[in-house]
Amino acid sequence: MTVAPRIPVARVVSPESIAVIGASDSLEKFGGRILHNILRHGYPGRLLPINPNRDSVLGLKAYASIAAAPGPIDIAVVAVPVGLLRATVEECALAGVGACIVITAQTAEFDATGARLQEEIAEVARAHDMRLVGPNCMGMINPPHSLALSSTMTLQHVARLRPGGVGLVSQSGALMGTLFVLGEDHGVGFSRLVSVGNQADLELCDFFEHLIEDPATSTICLYVEGIKSPRRFMELARRAAAAGKPVLAVKAGRTDAGSVAARSHTASMVGSYAAFAAACRATGVVLLDEPEGMVLTAGVLDRLGPIGSGGIGLIVSSGGGGAVTIDRMTAAGLPLAAWSAETRARLERYYLPSHINNPMDLGAHKGALALENFAETIKAVAEDREVAIAFFIMTPQPLMKETTDALVATWRDTRKPMVVVVDAGSFGQPVRARLIEAGLPFVDRIDDGLRAVDAMVRLRALKAELAEAAPARPPGCGPAPRGLPAGPLTEVEAKALLRAYGIPVTRERVVCSAGEAVAAAEAIGYPVALKGVSRRVVHKSDAGLVKLRLADAGAVGAAFAAVTAALLAASPGEAPAAVVQEMASGEAELIVGARHDEGFGPQVMVGLGGILVEVLKDVRLACAPLGPQRVETLLRELALWPVLAGVRGRPRADVAAIADAVSRVSWLACDLGPALRELDINPLLARAAGGGVIAVDGRATLE
Amino acid sequence: MTVAPRIPVARVVSPESIAVIGASDSLEKFGGRILHNILRHGYPGRLLPINPNRDSVLGLKAYASIAAAPGPIDIAVVAVPVGLLRATVEECALAGVGACIVITAQTAEFDATGARLQEEIAEVARAHDMRLVGPNCMGMINPPHSLALSSTMTLQHVARLRPGGVGLVSQSGALMGTLFVLGEDHGVGFSRLVSVGNQADLELCDFFEHLIEDPATSTICLYVEGIKSPRRFMELARRAAAAGKPVLAVKAGRTDAGSVAARSHTASMVGSYAAFAAACRATGVVLLDEPEGMVLTAGVLDRLGPIGSGGIGLIVSSGGGGAVTIDRMTAAGLPLAAWSAETRARLERYYLPSHINNPMDLGAHKGALALENFAETIKAVAEDREVAIAFFIMTPQPLMKETTDALVATWRDTRKPMVVVVDAGSFGQPVRARLIEAGLPFVDRIDDGLRAVDAMVRLRALKAELAEAAPARPPGCGPAPRGLPAGPLTEVEAKALLRAYGIPVTRERVVCSAGEAVAAAEAIGYPVALKGVSRRVVHKSDAGLVKLRLADAGAVGAAFAAVTAALLAASPGEAPAAVVQEMASGEAELIVGARHDEGFGPQVMVGLGGILVEVLKDVRLACAPLGPQRVETLLRELALWPVLAGVRGRPRADVAAIADAVSRVSWLACDLGPALRELDINPLLARAAGGGVIAVDGRATLE
Repeated sequence: MTVAPRIPVARVVSPESIAVIGASDSLEKFGGRILHNILRHGYPGRLLPINPNRDSVLGLKAYASIAAAPGPIDIAVVAVPVGLLRATVEECALAGVGACIVITAQTAEFDATGARLQEEIAEVARAHDMRLVGPNCMGMINPPHSLALSSTMTLQHVARLRPGGVGLVSQSGALMGTLFVLGEDHGVGFSRLVSVGNQADLELCDFFEHLIEDPATSTICLYVEGIKSPRRFMELARRAAAAGKPVLAVKAGRTDAGSVAARSHTASMVGSYAAFAAACRATGVVLLDEPEGMVLTAGVLDRLGPIGSGGIGLIVSSGGGGAVTIDRMTAAGLPLAAWSAETRARLERYYLPSHINNPMDLGAHKGALALENFAETIKAVAEDREVAIAFFIMTPQPLMKETTDALVATWRDTRKPMVVVVDAGSFGQPVRARLIEAGLPFVDRIDDGLRAVDAMVRLRALKAELAEAAPARPPGCGPAPRGLPAGPLTEVEAKALLRAYGIPVTRERVVCSAGEAVAAAEAIGYPVALKGVSRRVVHKSDAGLVKLRLADAGAVGAAFAAVTAALLAASPGEAPAAVVQEMASGEAELIVGARHDEGFGPQVMVGLGGILVEVLKDVRLACAPLGPQRVETLLRELALWPVLAGVRGRPRADVAAIADAVSRVSWLACDLGPALRELDINPLLARAAGGGVIAVDGRATLE
Repeated sequence: MTVAPRIPVARVVSPESIAVIGASDSLEKFGGRILHNILRHGYPGRLLPINPNRDSVLGLKAYASIAAAPGPIDIAVVAVPVGLLRATVEECALAGVGACIVITAQTAEFDATGARLQEEIAEVARAHDMRLVGPNCMGMINPPHSLALSSTMTLQHVARLRPGGVGLVSQSGALMGTLFVLGEDHGVGFSRLVSVGNQADLELCDFFEHLIEDPATSTICLYVEGIKSPRRFMELARRAAAAGKPVLAVKAGRTDAGSVAARSHTASMVGSYAAFAAACRATGVVLLDEPEGMVLTAGVLDRLGPIGSGGIGLIVSSGGGGAVTIDRMTAAGLPLAAWSAETRARLERYYLPSHINNPMDLGAHKGALALENFAETIKAVAEDREVAIAFFIMTPQPLMKETTDALVATWRDTRKPMVVVVDAGSFGQPVRARLIEAGLPFVDRIDDGLRAVDAMVRLRALKAELAEAAPARPPGCGPAPRGLPAGPLTEVEAKALLRAYGIPVTRERVVCSAGEAVAAAEAIGYPVALKGVSRRVVHKSDAGLVKLRLADAGAVGAAFAAVTAALLAASPGEAPAAVVQEMASGEAELIVGARHDEGFGPQVMVGLGGILVEVLKDVRLACAPLGPQRVETLLRELALWPVLAGVRGRPRADVAAIADAVSRVSWLACDLGPALRELDINPLLARAAGGGVIAVDGRATLE
């Protein structure tokens, strides 16, 4: 785009004047429903129905064409039949409209003809510095601006828009309607909800950026199908974190299988979802499993703010659900609070010592039922410094109204984050109404409560990770040797690359005859390994190119003959070279990988290796560069971490050396950038603490 | 109990006459609320308020005492202050009451005094052949009998009881109220809901048995905190399965840590929850993670019945949620249907081929929006023979009412199980009302839909497992050798036990001197292993009692000296014996264990061994005996199954031999019964297919 667009994104989202093309009185038509919704929710700006056949629509003066309507027109809503789309967009562009919100569908999402049409309208818009939202979008809802620009029928259902801090950008339009009404039911206040449709011009990141800058927005939700500009997404996510605005995301397409043609383990195990997840983690974005749960969680975050240190304190109004919920929290790895001595003393006024647990069961009190029991229990838990989040499950119980008031009062007094589950079906409706009025968030199901609490705990951890100092490049780390060829490297070349980054590799020597092989073995010291050197063969062991534990000259000579013969068979035409290596051993076998993600840039993978790596997929992926401290955090998240930590009397592995090596690989990946398609160290052997690590095999493909 | 109780359990649950002790006009009092609820829901039997100070209560003639009330009285509701409890129960017993429903709390759940009181009232009841429900229970709700005998406030909220096939027995009273209202909101019809309280007399299994026999009940839900009679529970579960009544259960206490004093891996890895889970699996019970989800799932099962073969066919009214739900199904291992060619052809009338997927997105149709698109899509999917369950997610959309009608009509025509998620918040209320009226089950959240679908799929698998023929004892399987001592066995004794059950063990010979050791090694053939024989030392390797890969006489002699010295140090006073064994090798290392669960009887554990077994806990536990086919099913469920199946060009392990060995261990566990406290084979080495297995180390403790 050569000149600035006519209006900024903020103005697209909060326009001062709106033309509705195809405006009609009929709720059956898109244009009619949108106009109706805008009117119903009291939009205060200028509203201009466009209809060639009518003087007025829904009581508003109508105009025959966009050209006939008085300017300036910030946005035009385009919900015309697809055959009229191009002409309509052109008319808007010529009339000086700031942006078209294109509801019309059957464009790129439909077929090739639609895709061409979409390209054409985008071109028209670009040529006139006009912006586009959509096509195939569902508009937007902007409660602080009293704007309900969408055909979603949920806007007819909801009495009035509730402004609040939750901003949503959605790649699914229908989902926006679902999430809007779900939020409404739960007292979630929204700042802006935007359906981006096919993103012919303005895309998810444009609105993401707007929400970061938007003072009305405190918490950002993204429903993502694919990221058009991954680097910008990461940069924006970092800005949102710096601005103190939590970002939640759900991404469809978790189950993609990764690149089929990948040569390396790393690339075969890392699909686009994993790459996105690593980018989210690096930038503080909390990924969730479903959009509905995301918006309810955002509603909780918006009203409660960040949590402090400590665990979760559970209070239940009946014993039954509490134990099961504690089980689920434990299974999910959520931290439970232990009551402080002070809290315990306060609770002993109302409960027998054996009944003071996490969860606290309000029903287990001593003496007669009294609100005081309930209110004081809630207060004691909320005031406990060990409690980061008070989690209250309210089932049908006596003194329900009074207990709700006590919850609200405690929350107002203590400001301790408090997640309330109104686990009472329709019987809980009065409680919900009271909580909505008071601004204390709630959910209806324990599933959602756990989802919210988990997000809060993860957000705390991500915040701490973002606050870590940027990793420093270790000494002796790069540069890469010159002259490495494009395409797959041999093991020898790959190891030269690793060595240049200060990663210890096996002592080895390339040999071209049995005699050289024996001489090399004598120099290195028996036993040795002998491997065929090939640029083409991916699985060397499977092709018979690896001979291990060769104990004497005879074995080495025989191995050379066998390996070169196998090499000839597996890769005719390659020169019969081999490499003689020291036999290394260690306490643990790791796999370390790197790849350049086309979107998210250099990423590093680490996991426990051996044959289990492909079976268990117990690996962690992270964006490069990584400091050793962060690598250790990743290692501790592995299911097999106890193997490194020293299980059943085995020595602890040299975790510091592993962390150093992985960090070095991450710098390598950063330096090479897109030139590094993929790299594996498999295995990286780790010796006992203090003994270091050694790369036994390496593989890489350069672009 | 020497004589039959006065009334059977069926009559306790569906009484013809009820006395309410402490009846009052006040809704603030338990007695008043219960009487009010009974009246409100139109109980047609005789109702007798007992109140010494009143002639009538709530318009009914009142009696001064239970003795003064005209008999026969099937049940008396006892909601008196705890100080009056014993006297009241005695009066009821003397008056010939069939059963007391004791609401009064602060008994065994509270403190030692309460526990004594509970014992006393149980003794009074026993002495008079009167039954007790409770104490500390919340009564029961029996819609087919128009009986609402509970103080739960949800009974004041619900307009009328909805009879249906879901029966619930709950060890938490308050939970009964929660689940009742949740069911009500979702159109779940209940047969009987019973809160069993502290189970001083009638316990969970008594009501479980009743629900199996009860013609009004089709689906059974159990909320379990602890099972009083585990063997009876298993027998009943089998009877329920035979009667075609699905049983769902939730058990609190998942996170218990198992027996701390366990000597074996098996016992240390198997807690009481795992033992219960194994018992559930053996008897066809579906375990769920929360009571709320259990009742919603039961409501689905009750109305849809069992599923046939095939996978899940997903239909969504908007694209957004569909992809995410498919991701979640894939992650949960749920089977997805592939549309048949016929279905595909039918769908091509309405959709471009590229838009025919699982999920089907109704919004992606060709041409104009029409109900025909929607109705035909639903029908095509429901009629597909590859589809076991049609899963429909309805978000706010056009033609919502008509689509609902199409769903109902298709369900009525095809009777294909159809799980509907009304993912539309309060906007979906009219849809829900229509579905309730039509009897088509729904849930509000995708979480619940997935839970229900998962339960249906698991139930299908469990049914198939129950239909397998009972395992036959393999030839040469037992009996156990006579004369094994109580307490821990030595490895040699444990292996004798294994050998008696036809499980291959290492060739070995006990030796008492270095000379004997060398002679044994020569006979067995080098290399050999030499281990100290000890009854006391649990971790032989850690104590230096294991020497491996001894290649010659010198090494054997030195090993004998070292091992006997280590034995003397680790276990002073034990005779310095050792065993010389062949060095066995294999493709995979397994752990096989057995234990006698005090409640659920003999159970067998199998998993991939090595140092990873304690880290990954990748094991399966099952009730003994097990046939080889079932063992293979368990092996296939292991995360590490690919290691056995042959990963990355490695040979497949001898799965048949593993299955045979585990099956033999299961017979061993059955034969020894409570005499076998715990047994480990660790490792059981499996060679490549055809090569068999061999038990390298064994450990057992007898009672």
